[in-house]
This record gives sequence, C-alpha cells and structure tokens, in this order.
Amino acid sequence: MKKKYISPFKPLKSIKVKTSGFKIYTFNAGYKRFSDDLVIICFDKAVAISSVYTQSSTPSAAVIWDKKISKKNLCKVLIVNSGNANAYTGKEGIEAIKKYCAFASKILKCKLNQIYVSSTGVIGESLDPLLIINKLKILKRSKTKNLLDAAKAIMTTDTYPKICSETFKINGKKINIYGIAKGSGMIAPNMGTMLSYIFIEASLNNQTLNKLLKFNIENSFNSISVDGDMSTNDTVMLFSVGDIKLTKKENNEIVFNLLSTALKKIMLNLSHQIVCDGEGISRLIEVNITNAKNKIQAKKIAFSIAESLLVKTAIFGKDANWGRIIMAIGKTSEKIYPNKISLKFGKFIVAEKGKISKRINETSLKKYMKNKIIKINLNLNIGKFSKTVWSSDLTNEYIKLNTDYRS
Amino acid sequence: MKKKYISPFKPLKSIKVKTSGFKIYTFNAGYKRFSDDLVIICFDKAVAISSVYTQSSTPSAAVIWDKKISKKNLCKVLIVNSGNANAYTGKEGIEAIKKYCAFASKILKCKLNQIYVSSTGVIGESLDPLLIINKLKILKRSKTKNLLDAAKAIMTTDTYPKICSETFKINGKKINIYGIAKGSGMIAPNMGTMLSYIFIEASLNNQTLNKLLKFNIENSFNSISVDGDMSTNDTVMLFSVGDIKLTKKENNEIVFNLLSTALKKIMLNLSHQIVCDGEGISRLIEVNITNAKNKIQAKKIAFSIAESLLVKTAIFGKDANWGRIIMAIGKTSEKIYPNKISLKFGKFIVAEKGKISKRINETSLKKYMKNKIIKINLNLNIGKFSKTVWSSDLTNEYIKLNTDYRS
Repeated sequence: MKKKYISPFKPLKSIKVKTSGFKIYTFNAGYKRFSDDLVIICFDKAVAISSVYTQSSTPSAAVIWDKKISKKNLCKVLIVNSGNANAYTGKEGIEAIKKYCAFASKILKCKLNQIYVSSTGVIGESLDPLLIINKLKILKRSKTKNLLDAAKAIMTTDTYPKICSETFKINGKKINIYGIAKGSGMIAPNMGTMLSYIFIEASLNNQTLNKLLKFNIENSFNSISVDGDMSTNDTVMLFSVGDIKLTKKENNEIVFNLLSTALKKIMLNLSHQIVCDGEGISRLIEVNITNAKNKIQAKKIAFSIAESLLVKTAIFGKDANWGRIIMAIGKTSEKIYPNKISLKFGKFIVAEKGKISKRINETSLKKYMKNKIIKINLNLNIGKFSKTVWSSDLTNEYIKLNTDYRS
Repeated sequence: MKKKYISPFKPLKSIKVKTSGFKIYTFNAGYKRFSDDLVIICFDKAVAISSVYTQSSTPSAAVIWDKKISKKNLCKVLIVNSGNANAYTGKEGIEAIKKYCAFASKILKCKLNQIYVSSTGVIGESLDPLLIINKLKILKRSKTKNLLDAAKAIMTTDTYPKICSETFKINGKKINIYGIAKGSGMIAPNMGTMLSYIFIEASLNNQTLNKLLKFNIENSFNSISVDGDMSTNDTVMLFSVGDIKLTKKENNEIVFNLLSTALKKIMLNLSHQIVCDGEGISRLIEVNITNAKNKIQAKKIAFSIAESLLVKTAIFGKDANWGRIIMAIGKTSEKIYPNKISLKFGKFIVAEKGKISKRINETSLKKYMKNKIIKINLNLNIGKFSKTVWSSDLTNEYIKLNTDYRS
C-alpha cells in the first residue's frame, strides 16, 4: 500500500481544549465514507457573532445563506459539513439548506435566522439535506464531543486537525479564547478553502467582535497562500460565548488591545497551521517585505514572491535561486529601485546594490536551504511599510494530491 | 541514465527556412557547456525594427539597452546569447553589453545604436563580454548558418526549436515572413522568458511595423501562460528585411490587412509552439471565454482559469473537474451570473443554469479528457466580448525541471 502523505509540520500531539457556553456534536452523516463529516454546535443561548466570507463571485450556498442572515448577528446553532461544498448547486443548494435548517429550528427550538451553516468539499455536487436531518433527529440522545473532534470533522485534504487555545486576564478575570480551522488547498489571500471558528469566553457585542475580526484578519488569514486559488466557501466566524461581562470601564481601548492581542495569537496560529498543512508541503516559506513605499506595494510584492511557481519549486529543491525572487518582484511592475534592494535568505545576504552580493556565502546558504522554514527577507529601502506572508513550497505531492482528489 | 523529458507536442521534423537580407552566425561561446549559445545576425543594411519588451520592473540589461536605442528604430546587427540572462547584474551588466557592442560596432562597421541585444538564461550571474568578443573576432571567417540553427541556439529549457514560415502575395509579389522563438518557463501574459524574432521580406517603415506588432501581440504572445511568472528578459522583435517595396497605392488598408493576417499566423504559431513546450507539459489547455461583459472581464477570467494550479493539475490528471473552473471564475471577483453560465469541455457540457448539467455525459467526458488538447469553453452570456488564451497543465515534470534547473 502507498504511504499516505502527511505534512512534516504535523504536531506530535493535538491539544484538547475545554470549552464552555456551547455543546458540540459530531457525526459521520454520509458525505464522507468513514470519518466524521458533520459538526453541530448548539450554543446555550443566542450569541453575538462576527463573520468574514470569501470574495468569490461564485460563492457557495452556505456563504449566500450566512450573508443573508448575518444582519441579525446572533447565532444559536452552527452546522458544518465536510465532503460536499454545496457550491454551484443552483437553487437546490439553497433549498437543501432551508430544509435542514427548518428541521433544526423546530427540533432545537431556535429562529431560522440564528442558524449559521458552512460546507466544504467537492464543488458542484448536490447536497442531500436528509443526511443532516437524520443526525438532527438523534442529536438529543447523542454524546457531546470536544473541540478537537470538531476540528477533525471539518477536515478535507488536511493531514492534521487545527486547534489552538489562549488564556489571558483582564482585571483579574481569566478569559479563554480558542478556535479551530481547516485548510488546505485553494488557500489564497482573501482566504482559501478555509473554514475557521473562534470562540471568546467573554460577553462582547457585535460591534466589538466586528472590530476585533477586521483588525486581525489582514495579517493572519489574508496573509497566507498555498496555491493562489480562492475558494467558493471560505468562512471565518468569531463568537462571543460565556458570561464574563466587561463593564463599561473595562470595555475601553486597553481592554480592546488585550482582547485583540489574544485574538491575533489565535488567528496567526490557526492560519500558520493551515499553511503548514498546505497540500503537499515540504517547507514553509515566510516572505518579509520591509521598507516598501506603501502597504499595497508591500503586499503585492510579498504575494508575487510567495505565489511564484518558480520560487516555490526552487525552495522545494533547496535551491537558493534568488534570481527567481528578482523575477517575482519585477513581474508586479511595481516601481522599485534595484540598486536599493537588499535580499536575504534568513540572515544570509544574496543580492544588494542591484546585483549578486559580494558577501554571498554559498556554504552557509546551502545549509540554510535545508531548513523546514525558509525566510525570504527583502528590504526595498524606499519607504516605511512592511508585510509578512506565508506560503508552502510546490512539490510532487501537491501534483499527486490534486490529480487524485476531486475538490 | 534517466530519460530526458521531451514535450509530447514536439514536431516530428523541424522546417528549414530560406532567408534573405541577412546573414546568420551561431556559436558555442561558452555560456552553455556544449550546444550553441550565441546568435549573431548581420543585416545587409540597417533595417526598420519594431519591438516589445517585458513589463518587469527588474528588466535585464539587454532590455534596458534595447529600449534606450530603440528610439532610432534601425537595426544592423542582432546579438542574442542563451545560458546567461544578464539580469540583475547591476552596472556591470550594462558595461558588458557596451563592451561587446563597441567591439561589434568596430568590426562590423556599424553604429553602436543599431546593435540590438538579447539574453536568456540564469538571472544574477555576471555576463562575460569576452566570450562574445572572441566569436566576433572570428565572425568573418565563420560559416553562415540557417534560421533553424539560430532557433536552436536561443533555446534554454526548450525541448524543441521554434520556427515557422508563411508566404503570401500582394499584387502578384510573393512575400515571405518567418520567425523563431524560445520559451519555456516564466511564460505569462505580457510575455514570459520569451524571445522571438520575426522577419518580413518587405520594405516597411517603422510606423507600419509598430502598428502590425501592436495589432497582433495581444492575441498571440500576450495570450499564453505556462506558470504565470513574467521574466526579466522578454522580447519580441519584428524586422523589415529585403527590398520588396510596396508602392503608396499598395500600402493601404487592404495591404495592411494582408500583412497583418500573415503576421498573425506567424505570431500565433510561434506562441503556440512556446506554450506547447511549456515546462513539463503533458496537455495543452485552450480557454475560450465568450459573451463576457467587456474585454477586461474576458481576459481576467480566461487567465484565472488558465493559470489556476488546481485546474492545471486536474487537466494533468485527466479529470473533468469543472468545480475548479467555477472556483477560478469566482476568484476573479468579477460580477457574473452563475445562472447564465454554460461551461463545456470541448463540445461536452458540464454546467449550466447555475449547477451541474442534466445533459452531462460522463463517458464522453472521460474519453475527451484523454486528448492532448483540452478546450475549456465558457459562455458567460452577459455581453459580446470574447478571449482565448492557452496554457499548459501542471505536471510532475514541471516540478522536476524547476527544482533541478537554476533559471
């Protein structure tokens, strides 16, 4: 039997997280053959939610549904299935959601517009709502599961579940924040086939949640890329759970910054886990652009390098092929000054003053290129703006996975 | 010994073309180990030239040089080397060109600003001008070569030389038009590591040449993509050679259209040869967008599909995975109407009315996907604009070639 591909970044042990404020159920509903493919989360009460979705102009039925109900910004139930994306499924796609949500609304005694849904998996195959309804029927007599079970049940080509947790204190009050995510193909700026659900154990209003999410998404989930392909189903949701109230006095800038710092950690951690499980990955690429003229330039050049097939294959080949990075800078057509650029792999300089560096050390470079994490550090020396993005290398495994798997 | 990868599109036989108006010399100058890596073309007299270059913001020294002298638009000598791109080589890069051009100017008795140069190969390594000068020294006693020899000498990772020829008549006068080109990585819209030289055996002025080139480049060289990477060295040059004069009466719209039609054939042929020799190609992908709202939308969606790694790997895997095409349409964020789209592989419908087609025929599709040329036909049904682009699939060979080769 062929050995199954596993990301070299797979953690030795997945953490278990104690949650509160909601119950988790997972099932094998039948979208996948064996493993769990359905997560149902029932919140103790309707909670505040903030969410961000794919910018695709062919969004999935789930994204269309969520966007429609998200005006209310209250969530009582979350239903996520894997194995079928319910994307490009026409009116039937929405009808399917209506069916299983109507049933959930009845059984779980909640409003229809407080049921959020997500789907991930194959595009274009119709989703049978009965498979979800069948599990809703037995929900009340089913055993509750933990967050790690949920992380596992939303996986598609992921080789490990993505979960993390942080605890911090605000005025002596311990606040937990935790989340799960899935990747791992179609990961591109503005999110990939990416789902993530994050929970803060504090009573926050929608405004604060929106602000927190908006503040942190650009440098986390929107700064990763596996293959430059944006999915139809991307979703990040942030929930306020638990009863810890922040008084008005506490709900100030300092508190916001504390919350934001903790959330940032979670979002960075999860987005890194996603890219580290990028399809077929052998090496993580971190591109650091410094001293760009403006934000847009920094981001454009960073992604041009991170997504260049020639750069990605060079990294896979352990080749310090900096010429391809120069090409990737150039193809943005951004106005830069070749003479001002300094380019390093890690701390090892390769190019400066418009050409190969005289201080280049091939032996150190060769050794550096064997690392599991390769940092491309590019100083443009024309301004004050910086940007970091992450991507995976392009390997034979990527090709193999994507010629075998219908996504 | 490992079998060397050869494109399945390699022609059984390369054509030989009779040229006139210039002499061709080719040499192994020493940039490559064995095969010829230097082409010197000496025109019988200074000829009109029109040229288009990479839009890279880190262009090669050769591109910088040519752009500078191209105000005069007359060419007496063309010097092309392969094996070294002379890109990102700082001031020394330009100095190297000055040195070998100064020597050529003296030896070949022509103006410095009538010597055009191109380079292709590895980025960032300094180019030794002496290697070219050494060959210039023995030029006069060297045997002249033919156009096919030149096509071979400009190859890098190309697996076959790219050459073609057309003959047409204007008012009884036979006019030949022929050209050569090289690929085959870093091929992206706005040209890849791509060099092409085309010769028209008619006496045309710069204005006409410019118009002809501009008129035909968008739908040929700017409509192909191998890996979405744009090179630092791309160049297309069009030369007017020979003495066939078109009288004023002849030089009208009808004549222009005849010329343009012939040139279009040559440029399409050469650009197809380039993409058919795309690194590691197993299948040619042709994306036809019809009835888009506008030109930009048509082009954006066409390239989004043609360059999607997930689409390219699906084609490699002979998988009619149309969901990935929907994803690629969506990720442009272009406003389209899913319900109006009709999507076909060749003549076989897969999606319509916003979902999988009821008329889908899996057996025919499966058979179709085994073809060497896969046509993705997408009718957006919202306007009148269309666009066709070509790309190659993404294969294990691509990965292998680009982890082994330092470009």
